[in-house]
This record gives sequence, structure tokens and C-alpha cells, in this order.
Amino acid sequence: MPKILFAAGPALWADYRAALAAAFAEAGIKATITPETTTPAEIDYIIYAPASPLTDFTAFTRCKAVLNLWAGVEKFVHNPTLTQPLARMVNPELTESMVEYVVGHTLRHHLQMADYPQDGVWRNHLLPPLARERPVTVLGLGALGQAAARALAQLNFPVTGWSRTPRTLPGISCLSGDTGLGQALATAQILILLLPLTADTTNLMNADRLTRLPRGAVILNPGRGALIDDDALLAALATGQIGQATLDVFRTEPLPPDHPYWAHPNVTVTPHIAADTRPASAARVIAENIRRGEAGAPLLYPVDRARGY
Amino acid sequence: MPKILFAAGPALWADYRAALAAAFAEAGIKATITPETTTPAEIDYIIYAPASPLTDFTAFTRCKAVLNLWAGVEKFVHNPTLTQPLARMVNPELTESMVEYVVGHTLRHHLQMADYPQDGVWRNHLLPPLARERPVTVLGLGALGQAAARALAQLNFPVTGWSRTPRTLPGISCLSGDTGLGQALATAQILILLLPLTADTTNLMNADRLTRLPRGAVILNPGRGALIDDDALLAALATGQIGQATLDVFRTEPLPPDHPYWAHPNVTVTPHIAADTRPASAARVIAENIRRGEAGAPLLYPVDRARGY
Repeated sequence: MPKILFAAGPALWADYRAALAAAFAEAGIKATITPETTTPAEIDYIIYAPASPLTDFTAFTRCKAVLNLWAGVEKFVHNPTLTQPLARMVNPELTESMVEYVVGHTLRHHLQMADYPQDGVWRNHLLPPLARERPVTVLGLGALGQAAARALAQLNFPVTGWSRTPRTLPGISCLSGDTGLGQALATAQILILLLPLTADTTNLMNADRLTRLPRGAVILNPGRGALIDDDALLAALATGQIGQATLDVFRTEPLPPDHPYWAHPNVTVTPHIAADTRPASAARVIAENIRRGEAGAPLLYPVDRARGY
Repeated sequence: MPKILFAAGPALWADYRAALAAAFAEAGIKATITPETTTPAEIDYIIYAPASPLTDFTAFTRCKAVLNLWAGVEKFVHNPTLTQPLARMVNPELTESMVEYVVGHTLRHHLQMADYPQDGVWRNHLLPPLARERPVTVLGLGALGQAAARALAQLNFPVTGWSRTPRTLPGISCLSGDTGLGQALATAQILILLLPLTADTTNLMNADRLTRLPRGAVILNPGRGALIDDDALLAALATGQIGQATLDVFRTEPLPPDHPYWAHPNVTVTPHIAADTRPASAARVIAENIRRGEAGAPLLYPVDRARGY
């Protein structure tokens, strides 16, 4: 019977305890699960989250896998004591939630909702273009980027997708590599950032790349805060090179109340809500990975340390 | 060579003159078109709009069809002098524009965007449900209602559609008739009005029917202003029975600056922009109907006077 350490912290333990028990029962897994341990050498699996107090994995000598509750692993993937197999979270609800956020905010910008203040003035001469006249670009074509690109294409947006390594997706104009990035930015009236955070993608949207976008472009960032050079974005907003930004993720979260993004008339801040892991469905993914670990089968969603995600 | 009167008024003549010439050339139609005539008995087709100064059709004895530039015909369908065949406008761009508006504003309400004011407070405990947990109802399953229902279902919303006469649409729970209306309202967390305006649908959303919706429901009206009893809606907003309303159409347009909708914190007014006819594509529909008229073929989108649309 495997022993599982829930090391994602006490707040999440309250949310996950019952969900994990239900998912284990559903999957026919018999296991003991505990929020703390004095005998790390006996632990078979660690359920983890970036905010965990556990940062030294050395003593977990029998551990078959560290299973992260979130999609992002950048805060601990390079922890030298974390030598055990590592899996990140990919689940359908997270994808659904992200698609709804991306489509909703893309349409808010596309329909130019901010141009119709509730001031009694009937501005019916302002007619936004149709979606098929509004090219959008999605940077990052992992599970979330692909799903977002597909949903936007279904609504007639001409969608360009960019990824580090080449991809082919039906209905999406796919580009890759450095040259492809320049092309992907050049047409993007709305740019959506869904890249993982790695050494290569940190500050990807720097001052130079912001100038590659069409003037007045909109940036939507539900990916990772550090994909954007914040000072460069504020400067580009000041000149009008960037027309609007909707940001869900930040270098420091919660975003401090005095951060210039909050009060900026052309920035919309949302509090890291685009894709939140929900306990019931995340617990099912964890249960499936424990079942696979016990059966000697490959883990779902293994992290590639070299790529960093 | 058919003679065509452009009777939709001088403002639209400026917008449509070139678009109609291009569409006629594309369709191989040779015709004369004029914005006024002193010899009505020589006119073969009338291009029309509800705001037209032409209200007496008696003298147009040879006219084969009156072709409306807009979808709605309620302002003149019962004009007793209008005995000629009448066609309304249905065009793909109008449908696209409507779908984008409906999906965009449905997602704005679904994502509860108004619950995240830009005041420096990090409200990440507010997590909207997923679309698949948010039942929406579309009243009216004509071309626009069907397209909107389909797009919402693709985004995972459980969609109920209601129409006067029974319909079957894949992926949509279809209801009809009076009993069906009660059921369609009972589950609608977001209600979308896309019905034509007729004697039967005027004030359809009256005080009684507003109480059939779940408490706090959202109403989205891109259909016709008079589908809603405005006083009843304001009363239902005051009690919280209706949580929010987004209204694009009104009994009087432009909506007067002192109308209570403008200043209401839970009402969003948009200036009749959900689906605007665009000259290039509308002109192609007009050209196709003239081609059909000349060939003795049935008109596209004929108006049924008994139904009123």
C-alpha cells in the first residue's frame, strides 16, 4: 500500500483531502496519505505545489514521483535535490477555464467594449471589425495554447500560433523559431501569452519585441508574469505602441496595491484566475499517476528537466 | 434591363451606391439604379430600409420585390399598400457580428468581469463556475439564434433554445410553445433574446416571465427593444431578481441620455451594434435576389406576412 505525502501546504490540504480520498476510491487505489511525515524514506509519492514548505527532497529515497498540483513548475524544476520523476498538472477543467478566459477577454478587446462608456452618448458609428478581420497570435502551443487557438479559430479569428519547436495544427497558421516569432508578432492585433516560463522565455516580451507588434496591439497574459518585461510594457503603453493589456499573472502575486498596472487606464488586472486547478479533477489526475506509478507505467505529463517544463 | 429604386434614404445611398454597383457587376446583372423616381410604375425592384421616406407603395404597379436592407421588418410589414413580395436581409456578416457580440457579452457575464474592479484588491478567491456549469437559454432559433446557440454550445455552455414552432438542433436542448417557454426560462442563468418582434413577442419578458428566471439571472438583448417590458425589467433589477442586463436595442433609439438604463449600475447599454448590415455583403444578397427575380426563381428570405417576419 503506497504512502503518500501531501506536501502542498495546509491550506490546500483542507481543499484536497476529501477530493483525493474520492479520486483514490474511484480509481481503486488503496493508499495512506498524510500532510506530514517524520519518516521520509518511507514515502512513495509526494503531492506538491510551488508554495510548499518542502524544498529538500534528499531524504525521500524511495519516492517514485513528485506530482505537482499546478501546470507551472518553474519555481522548483531546477532544485538540485529534486531528482525524483516529476509530473506537472494538465487537466481538462484547467484547459476549459483557460479557454473561457482567453476567449472572453479576447472578445472584450475585439468588440472594443471599453469604447462604449455608459455616459448617455450613443456611439453607434463605432463598428468593430469582424473577427475574421482581426488577426490574433497565440505564443505557446502546449495543451492550453492549442485549445485557446482552436476556440479562437472557431470564432473566425485568423489565428497564428507560435511554439519553440515546430507544430502543425488544423486551421492555425503555425510558426516556430526566432524568425517565426518575428512573423507571429508582426500581424498580432491581439497577442496571447501561453508559454511556460523558462530561461528562454523570461522577458520574452521585451522592449524590442513589443515594437514588432502592430501599433496599438493588445496583450493578453494568462501565462506567466515574467514573460513580460514590465517596465518595457509600461513604456509601450505610454507611447500607444501597446493599446491595451489584460494581465492575469505577475512577478509578485498578489500584485501590490500600489503597482502602476492597477491604476493604468489601459491595463486590466485579473487576480490569477484564468486557469485555477479545481480539487476534484486535479485529484483524478493525481490518482491516475499513482495508479501508473504502481503499475510501472509511464507517468502522465512528465517534466523534461532540460526544457524546464 | 430592370429598373431599381434605392428607397432606403440618402445617407444609406452614400454607403451603398458603390457596393451595389460592385455586387451587380459580380453577379452579371445589368440594371439601372436610382435614389429617386418620378415614374414609379416603371420600377422593377425597391431596395428598402425601415427609415425610408417611402411609405405608400400603391403606385409601384410593376414592382416584383421590395428588398429590405435589415433583418427586422416589423415597422412596415403591416403597411396595407405594401402588397409586393417582400424579402428581409439575412447575411453571413450579420450573423458573424451577432455571434461575436452574443459570445463576447455572455462570456463577460459568465466570467463575472464586473466583480474584479481595478482597485488594488486581489480577489482570487472569486472563481466563476465553468461554462459547462452555467446554463444559458436562447429565445428565438432563426438564423441568428441558431448560430449563437451553436457557438455557445461549442464553448461548453449547456444551451437551451426556444422557438415558437418546434425545432431540432444538434447539441441544443430545444423547446417550443408556452409550456416550453416556462421550462426554458426556469434554468436560464443567462437569457439571450433573439426573437423577431411581432404582436406575440412584444413585452414577452414582462413582470411575470421575469420571475420565472432563476434569481440573479442575466438578460442579454441584442434582438428588439420591445421584447422587454422596460418598467418590469427595472423593477426586477431593483429587487435583484435580475442580476444584470446588457441591452443593445431599445424602443426609442438613440436611447435618450436621461433614460434610467444608462446610469444603472447593473445595466450595460450598447448602441445597436450587435449586428449591423455591412454594405458589401448586403449588396451581394440584394443582387442575388434581383437575379432570382429576373429568372423567376423564389426570393431568398421572403417575409411571411401572417407571422410578421
